[in-house]
Amino acid sequence: MPSSSLWPRFQKYFLRYDHPDFSIDISRMRFADDFLEKMQPLVEKAFAAMRELEAGAIANPDENRMVGHYWLRDPKLAPTAELRADIEETNARIKQFVASVHAGKIAPPKGGKFKHILLVGIGGSALGPQFIADALGQSTDPMDISFLDNTDPDGFDRVFNRLGEHLAHTLTVVISKSGGTKETRNGMLETAARYKQADLDFGKHAVAVTGVGSELDKFAEKHGWLTRFPMHDWVGGRTSIMSAVGLVPAALQGFDIDNFLAGAAAMDEKTRGTNAAQNAAMLLALMWHYAGNGRGEKDMVILPYKDRLMLFSKYLQQLVMESLGKENDLDGNVVHQGIAVYGNKGSTDQHAYVQQLRDGVLNFFVTFVEVEKDRGTERFEVEEGVTSGDYLQGFLRGTRSALYESGRESITLTIPEVNAFYIGALIALYERAVGFYASLVNINAYHQPGVEAGKKAATRILELQCRVQKTLAAGPDKTPEEIARELDADPEDVFHIVRHLEAND
Amino acid sequence: MPSSSLWPRFQKYFLRYDHPDFSIDISRMRFADDFLEKMQPLVEKAFAAMRELEAGAIANPDENRMVGHYWLRDPKLAPTAELRADIEETNARIKQFVASVHAGKIAPPKGGKFKHILLVGIGGSALGPQFIADALGQSTDPMDISFLDNTDPDGFDRVFNRLGEHLAHTLTVVISKSGGTKETRNGMLETAARYKQADLDFGKHAVAVTGVGSELDKFAEKHGWLTRFPMHDWVGGRTSIMSAVGLVPAALQGFDIDNFLAGAAAMDEKTRGTNAAQNAAMLLALMWHYAGNGRGEKDMVILPYKDRLMLFSKYLQQLVMESLGKENDLDGNVVHQGIAVYGNKGSTDQHAYVQQLRDGVLNFFVTFVEVEKDRGTERFEVEEGVTSGDYLQGFLRGTRSALYESGRESITLTIPEVNAFYIGALIALYERAVGFYASLVNINAYHQPGVEAGKKAATRILELQCRVQKTLAAGPDKTPEEIARELDADPEDVFHIVRHLEAND
Repeated sequence: MPSSSLWPRFQKYFLRYDHPDFSIDISRMRFADDFLEKMQPLVEKAFAAMRELEAGAIANPDENRMVGHYWLRDPKLAPTAELRADIEETNARIKQFVASVHAGKIAPPKGGKFKHILLVGIGGSALGPQFIADALGQSTDPMDISFLDNTDPDGFDRVFNRLGEHLAHTLTVVISKSGGTKETRNGMLETAARYKQADLDFGKHAVAVTGVGSELDKFAEKHGWLTRFPMHDWVGGRTSIMSAVGLVPAALQGFDIDNFLAGAAAMDEKTRGTNAAQNAAMLLALMWHYAGNGRGEKDMVILPYKDRLMLFSKYLQQLVMESLGKENDLDGNVVHQGIAVYGNKGSTDQHAYVQQLRDGVLNFFVTFVEVEKDRGTERFEVEEGVTSGDYLQGFLRGTRSALYESGRESITLTIPEVNAFYIGALIALYERAVGFYASLVNINAYHQPGVEAGKKAATRILELQCRVQKTLAAGPDKTPEEIARELDADPEDVFHIVRHLEAND
Repeated sequence: MPSSSLWPRFQKYFLRYDHPDFSIDISRMRFADDFLEKMQPLVEKAFAAMRELEAGAIANPDENRMVGHYWLRDPKLAPTAELRADIEETNARIKQFVASVHAGKIAPPKGGKFKHILLVGIGGSALGPQFIADALGQSTDPMDISFLDNTDPDGFDRVFNRLGEHLAHTLTVVISKSGGTKETRNGMLETAARYKQADLDFGKHAVAVTGVGSELDKFAEKHGWLTRFPMHDWVGGRTSIMSAVGLVPAALQGFDIDNFLAGAAAMDEKTRGTNAAQNAAMLLALMWHYAGNGRGEKDMVILPYKDRLMLFSKYLQQLVMESLGKENDLDGNVVHQGIAVYGNKGSTDQHAYVQQLRDGVLNFFVTFVEVEKDRGTERFEVEEGVTSGDYLQGFLRGTRSALYESGRESITLTIPEVNAFYIGALIALYERAVGFYASLVNINAYHQPGVEAGKKAATRILELQCRVQKTLAAGPDKTPEEIARELDADPEDVFHIVRHLEAND
């Protein structure tokens, strides 16, 4: 054995589960041997907080809400019979609805079958479905999917131009928890107009996923949409992928949602254990804590070596940063927490920014994601005895070594293949790791108070725009400063508004 | 004027060009008024270095190469008549070839026209073409494009399954500067096998973009490919988008490559000026220096408010991180430089990680990219007097304000619309800013020494794999430790190799 071998450390810090078939390797994080022991008091606190959360405690105190995404994949854990029934009935309704769509019983009024999905949603209502569509999609799926996930008019046009005449066979799924998100509202209105232009009855092509009684819920009811599925206040947007938000589009695309939920449930079961060394979610949280000194001092670079997992980093960017990026801790102290997340896929990224990871500023740690199975089709050799997949594996191992040699740390996760079960398991792993980490650093992972300020400022700008428009309509050319004086507004705001109006009127 | 108004600072630090129609606003970076003055000696050094580079100096000393990407959009600047002629002839050949493909004069041997492009390339040979395809693509383009940009067997299968029978009308463009990149070589071999399976003559569907005399060049010549376009050693992969690497796929998709080059040339002309306060590229570089204290202490978050610019951050991730992420400075001192880059698009990201930007760890600065024109089609109001585009603009301004209020800094760039000209201008801006910044911190922006270590380690793993396979074939079941002892290898390497072989044999 070469003296440089890390075999003993690897054996010590390589954790493998049988079900789900999963492993985590933290041997390339250079924490001291007594690190886990030192963290034990915080670890116990985190386990206790998670137990209470899963039992139905108000784990999101600022919003006075329970946090129930773990119940979605194991409804018998729900704290009341009503909640359990609600989850089970919703899932049964989703399957029934999707079966009817696939069978052509629920069909476009003008004939044919629904072959395309247009999902209108943003943030937690789009990132999960986008990740899953990319990870699990096949060219043989019964329906394909497009997204409107912004309020960009040209972006809307682009999607509708691509859909073209397929709009007649497109089922639109509008997803908004609050039912009041402006981007989604705008996307829905533009979509409705497109159906109308094509002489199609939008309501007969539309499904809502939203909070019961929300604006969107009422709108859908009033306009006779095909159906509505509920979102509950105890499921946050960024952890809603196993609610109707994720399940409706996944099932429509033909993905196995039972296995998706089962994978998550299996990972949940393993990561409920209170022995930190055997708990992959806690080990992840502890490694984040170690890497960034519990203050997010290192960025989290996510490097799955598999094309289908490319959007995982984007999904985690929301899950991790929106959950952990907080100003105050639970005691009200100003802490400015968070961990920055980025990444795409290997080995592709080795030909991009990995140069900086190896040689440059040491402000990150890497999480490699390895998929054991190379492909579903026949073996193809690019050299004698060597496949493209062997190269992929070689590049992962080689990059991990090269980074470690130059003092760059990494975690490696391994799953056997990319399917609904293992995507469910990966998501469950990170959901729980985020919850644990939040406890370790004493913050609320389940609210997002910081996003309101931007929305309010935007509303102010839009109100000012209406007043500027009136002023411009009323009088001759004025400078931004003159208009601002007249309206008691900031000249810079007026300047930008006038510039934008000029470019578009 | 409200007392909080930043109108005076905005007026001072808002720079606008007429041609290209472009502006940069650095008023929301809180640098002191004497910052530019203090940086002046370094600024002059950077201007001088860039002048020499553009004149043909060996600006990449480690590889003993000139750095000529600025000549590509203004060939008369090339330091010799031969280089100028080479650029002009290549561009003329590209246009001629593409015109023949579009006219059906160069066509698939089995009939019909080429309607699809399959680009095989990675890193600098894929990221630029991907960005441009997403930014400029229309459903009416003469050809669409797919990519093989990894060595993932399932990723290959996915692309071929989507192409299906269209393979018969697919033109494959293989791009590799060295001609020896393994991922691209593997992608090419798998592609050739697919054509063969479909009883199609691969060579008659194939084009190479590669260094003259490279392995790929010879292979393409030997197998009678349709044509070959050159890549020169004075163009780096990450700045090759205006060479044949970018121009061939762009022209095939029907994009206006003359305007693309003209946009870059126009930005080059403006950013050659040696008054820093009027030089947008130098201002960018200076702001990066200010934000991260010249040591990359802040991540660069790229937030374009336009769906079509979503891949800009990924493109910049390579351009910035591979150029600036360096261990040594030009004098050989260990400096570990770099700037981490991530981002997607607004307002979408406001519903994801912007929570952390506003409230969380202050380890970043934002670059907003604003596009003035909302859409090419008719105005559509979502409320009285208000469009989806007004919302998009409102969210940009609102988020910029909200971030600034909580001490988060930002730069804002504005272009009038997303077209070939302005994509060219944006790329040129960042290419020059990266060059300037490298001079400010005294590093070589044009090599990538760190990527070799990972490749070497991967080669070692693949060699070991062959030996492990022989050992496994020769004898009965052995443990990784036994095999390792026999082969004098690391048991952990053997463990991973055996696991991967088991999953795939």
